[in-house]
Amino acid sequence: MASAYGPVVPTSPSRCTLRPLDAGAVRLDPGGLLGSWQARNAAATLPHCIEQLDVRGNLRNLRRVTGEADGAFSGMWFADSDVYKTLEAAFWDLGRSGGGDPAFRAEVTALLEKAQDPDGYLDSYYQTDHRDRQWSELHYSHEMYCAGHLIQAAVAAARAAAGDEAGQQLVGVARRFADLLVRRYGPDGADGICGHPEIETALVELYRVTGHRPYLALAARFVELRGHGLLGGDRFGPRYFQDHAPVRHAREVAGHVVRQVYLLAGAVDVAVENGDAELLAATERLWESALASRTYLTGGQGSRHRDEAFGDPYELPPDRAYAETCAAIGSFQWAWRLLLATGRVRYADAMERFLYNGIAVGIGQSGREFFYANPLQLRTGHDGSDEDAPTQRLPWYSCACCPPNLARLMASLHHYTATGDARGLQLHLYASGRYASAGRTIEVSGDYPWDGRISITVRATDERPWTLALRVPDWCASARLSVNGAEFGAPAQAGYLRLARTWQPGDRVELVLAMPPRLIAAHPRVDAVRGTVALARGPLVYCLEHLDVPEALSGAVFEDIELDPAGPVQAVPAAGLAPVRLTATVSARGSTDDDLYRPLDPAARPAATGAVVSSVPYFLWANRAAGPMRVWIPLAGPAAP
Amino acid sequence: MASAYGPVVPTSPSRCTLRPLDAGAVRLDPGGLLGSWQARNAAATLPHCIEQLDVRGNLRNLRRVTGEADGAFSGMWFADSDVYKTLEAAFWDLGRSGGGDPAFRAEVTALLEKAQDPDGYLDSYYQTDHRDRQWSELHYSHEMYCAGHLIQAAVAAARAAAGDEAGQQLVGVARRFADLLVRRYGPDGADGICGHPEIETALVELYRVTGHRPYLALAARFVELRGHGLLGGDRFGPRYFQDHAPVRHAREVAGHVVRQVYLLAGAVDVAVENGDAELLAATERLWESALASRTYLTGGQGSRHRDEAFGDPYELPPDRAYAETCAAIGSFQWAWRLLLATGRVRYADAMERFLYNGIAVGIGQSGREFFYANPLQLRTGHDGSDEDAPTQRLPWYSCACCPPNLARLMASLHHYTATGDARGLQLHLYASGRYASAGRTIEVSGDYPWDGRISITVRATDERPWTLALRVPDWCASARLSVNGAEFGAPAQAGYLRLARTWQPGDRVELVLAMPPRLIAAHPRVDAVRGTVALARGPLVYCLEHLDVPEALSGAVFEDIELDPAGPVQAVPAAGLAPVRLTATVSARGSTDDDLYRPLDPAARPAATGAVVSSVPYFLWANRAAGPMRVWIPLAGPAAP
Repeated sequence: MASAYGPVVPTSPSRCTLRPLDAGAVRLDPGGLLGSWQARNAAATLPHCIEQLDVRGNLRNLRRVTGEADGAFSGMWFADSDVYKTLEAAFWDLGRSGGGDPAFRAEVTALLEKAQDPDGYLDSYYQTDHRDRQWSELHYSHEMYCAGHLIQAAVAAARAAAGDEAGQQLVGVARRFADLLVRRYGPDGADGICGHPEIETALVELYRVTGHRPYLALAARFVELRGHGLLGGDRFGPRYFQDHAPVRHAREVAGHVVRQVYLLAGAVDVAVENGDAELLAATERLWESALASRTYLTGGQGSRHRDEAFGDPYELPPDRAYAETCAAIGSFQWAWRLLLATGRVRYADAMERFLYNGIAVGIGQSGREFFYANPLQLRTGHDGSDEDAPTQRLPWYSCACCPPNLARLMASLHHYTATGDARGLQLHLYASGRYASAGRTIEVSGDYPWDGRISITVRATDERPWTLALRVPDWCASARLSVNGAEFGAPAQAGYLRLARTWQPGDRVELVLAMPPRLIAAHPRVDAVRGTVALARGPLVYCLEHLDVPEALSGAVFEDIELDPAGPVQAVPAAGLAPVRLTATVSARGSTDDDLYRPLDPAARPAATGAVVSSVPYFLWANRAAGPMRVWIPLAGPAAP
Repeated sequence: MASAYGPVVPTSPSRCTLRPLDAGAVRLDPGGLLGSWQARNAAATLPHCIEQLDVRGNLRNLRRVTGEADGAFSGMWFADSDVYKTLEAAFWDLGRSGGGDPAFRAEVTALLEKAQDPDGYLDSYYQTDHRDRQWSELHYSHEMYCAGHLIQAAVAAARAAAGDEAGQQLVGVARRFADLLVRRYGPDGADGICGHPEIETALVELYRVTGHRPYLALAARFVELRGHGLLGGDRFGPRYFQDHAPVRHAREVAGHVVRQVYLLAGAVDVAVENGDAELLAATERLWESALASRTYLTGGQGSRHRDEAFGDPYELPPDRAYAETCAAIGSFQWAWRLLLATGRVRYADAMERFLYNGIAVGIGQSGREFFYANPLQLRTGHDGSDEDAPTQRLPWYSCACCPPNLARLMASLHHYTATGDARGLQLHLYASGRYASAGRTIEVSGDYPWDGRISITVRATDERPWTLALRVPDWCASARLSVNGAEFGAPAQAGYLRLARTWQPGDRVELVLAMPPRLIAAHPRVDAVRGTVALARGPLVYCLEHLDVPEALSGAVFEDIELDPAGPVQAVPAAGLAPVRLTATVSARGSTDDDLYRPLDPAARPAATGAVVSSVPYFLWANRAAGPMRVWIPLAGPAAP
């Protein structure tokens, strides 16, 4: 019964403002930045993930269940989830490109079906060495987290590759597990929730694909059961699991970030399907709390390594930013759900900011190296010997949640760019490509985000009037629009520009988003970046890398570089996919005193030599060489004592 | 053969510059601050620790070995160490006061002897449920860490209470375990080291007490074996254990702070006894690396909660300071050893700074509540629900290393104040009380550290000339000295003032350490406190607590308080043990914009209302009420954008 084919397809009539586009409605141009990411994902990241599932033993774990392999269990106890996320990516990419690796999809699906218990249970960790602990340690086990990712893979198969035989088989596997969960934890079963949310959104999506209401009811039940201490104690306390307060009463995001944002994505899904306005309002309130004081400039979230948690309000250290790639992906998916539900532009603004910074930084230009944590500063002398805070992107991690999460997001990225229905089309993320909805087709071109000029040509349309809505991002102070060469209205500010008319094929809309370089300061309560400034342009945050320090300052310690806020900041034009750099004036603080602590002397400012430095988009750092980097640059001049 | 009786008594002729004083040589006045801490320790902390050993099951763990108790093992697998540290405190306090709880000392010692295996092994965790893992997981087990604390308790018994029967029995228990270690890991045994250092310094101290050289040789062997990867991998990597580089070649402190500083204390002991100049130089070099860029203003060390580690150079966040109480204690003990070895005043300066700030803050005024981590900032809205970062001191911890560590330090504190030999007496920490050495006695009085005037009266002396050395602390820009009322020499700066003469009973020395309030800035590379200032006076760092915010600013958010560096900072006199407060001029930043990120606008400074605020010594925070606090206060004026 699936009628539309991206991630998150609320049923009709559910409580939703915007509608996702149908399968095949969007084709991104691989010559544009987002399209190039999708192409790289198919060519490099997805094959790399598939290879790693073999190399790291994830598939062997499942073959241990079927008796086809022996040896010890490999990796984290929730290693099955890496298999599911890769499978989900493979099915989205099949839908997108019609290609990929059919043997991988078919063989893994067959393996899963073979490994599944007769009652539907599937978890290679518990099925082999830990049968006695099955279902007995939900706070820790990730059993339903893994089930959730299995279901998400099946949803991708159902939506993006409805005719695929392996996909149909996978939906069967997922449904059998979901049915077991309904029997075991449904209204007639036990009160139990998973320590790591994911099953909530997965069950709603499976309901959307199948129309089977018990899946939705179970998801709603899981959301409501949370926050009552069911998970018991843990070394990190109940907030770690968001088990300290029910979602609908919580005032602030808390605890482990990925758990929190996955839970809230599921809560939006439940709220939308059940028309639960109170629950939807709670998720919006929690969104505000996250964005008001617990989100990095890059959209990264999670200020602590210890428990991968949000931290206190305004606790946003750039050096120890955890800002897990999965957290940025999860918040992007949460924002998409809120955008569909409410139509509020702030969610699309956040999606753009998260995508181009906190998410994109997680993957290297090769498509085969990844960051798990994403600091906004790396110091001279950084100890990168630990996987927790490496100096460069790594090919894989012992906890490998992020790489296949990037693969599934990138494979489905085109679905997040636009919405539409009979009344019109709404463009949220600008990416070169073709967009179709309700019999109308438009083409978007330009060099966004390097250039703010976006061209939209109507390629096909019916004769009824419809509305083209174009997002003017929050970072844009002035947007100009012309239709077929004629200036349209006054320069616009942030929000959606809506053009309602009876369109003709060949109509051409030009949107010019003014994109001057910006100097950004943080709220003074963000102690960790007091007296510093960040460079940005368009949706991109920039950073200073050690290897761009100009010759004139080559003797300086990287940490002594300061930016002159009175100097010009200029964009350096570039062609095609080459990044636009920003230049600024910097100097090096002279060191007259090496003491760690010294008397305050506001007058002391040793002479400095000025020079022009070039900065690169944050998401591209550590692609040329390893070494010190910073987003927040100390201000030169009397402003910095 | 012990001839002197404090912690750390290098043998003669070992490579040492200063000599600790004999047992009973120092009696602190309970009317002075350090003496009051010792009295509180005996009256409150030590009985509280003894009670907790019962309540928390530590003693029951040992009775499970002897068959006198059943039930499950309680607490951390190294819970025996809490017993040993409390026992050590009890023996030091017996030596100090002649009092304490004889039943506790006797019964626990008897229990230990009964629980000990015939071969000398003693570890209630491995002896009961985990015999199969005994000696098989040295990176994790803490077996030798526990043995080390057992030995330290025995050393205290031997030195401070040589005639005590239980003490003699305890020395026997400790020696049997030490002899087992010599057989097992000595030159003829296996290559093995403990994941958590402590055994190194303990074995040297046991050698000093017994004269048995194999203990010293084994300690030296453990120091040399470290740094060659013997401990294998761990989720935190080999640096966590300091197993990445041999001590004598390491360039920088690294990893888990308590492990690092305990190891280096042991390395100094080995170097001193073996006359190993290269090893001693390595420990001094590592000291410099710690103090140059990895030590908080309070003397706290450890910038990361995740792995309790030092962190990168200049990574010193005040809010997430870990600064474990045990780390400050360990560094204090390391510094004492370096002071004895080298006589360099910088080690005494550091001991004072660590003691009055990073150590003292760990214990509440009741003596029954403790901090484990010691942040320099607590924010409005702090989540204190977790033992890792509580809002107030707690009566105990699931990992209770700090409370009994404070108890053993406080019980032996008088031993760390002075040194001496036939040539004279050296005062390092100023504390009211009596000091004796080589037949001479002096009396120290005054209200230090609240007041910089220190009076020293010679009470007994022989007729030979000797030298009284008085430390002028690094924070003191000007010290004046008078002898019997006559000004002596020009005002002096940091270092030791040495008065050589033939003294007469009744001779009176007055030292006046100028103690104006100070405004302190951090090195500009300490990003986390850029644009802020700290208040200090004498050895004390001050902090601003929420409940001292003046009425005029009562509507302000605590984090919006800024200090006017041009305003006066004044000390408020107080009598006796009451703390001296500092007053300063503050204002509240007006908030015109709640956005977390905004365009840089250096001109924007909303009007502020000024008021005078009172600050308290950092070590006293959170004694009146829980709530926000900060050591580093943002600077008002154009300096803070």
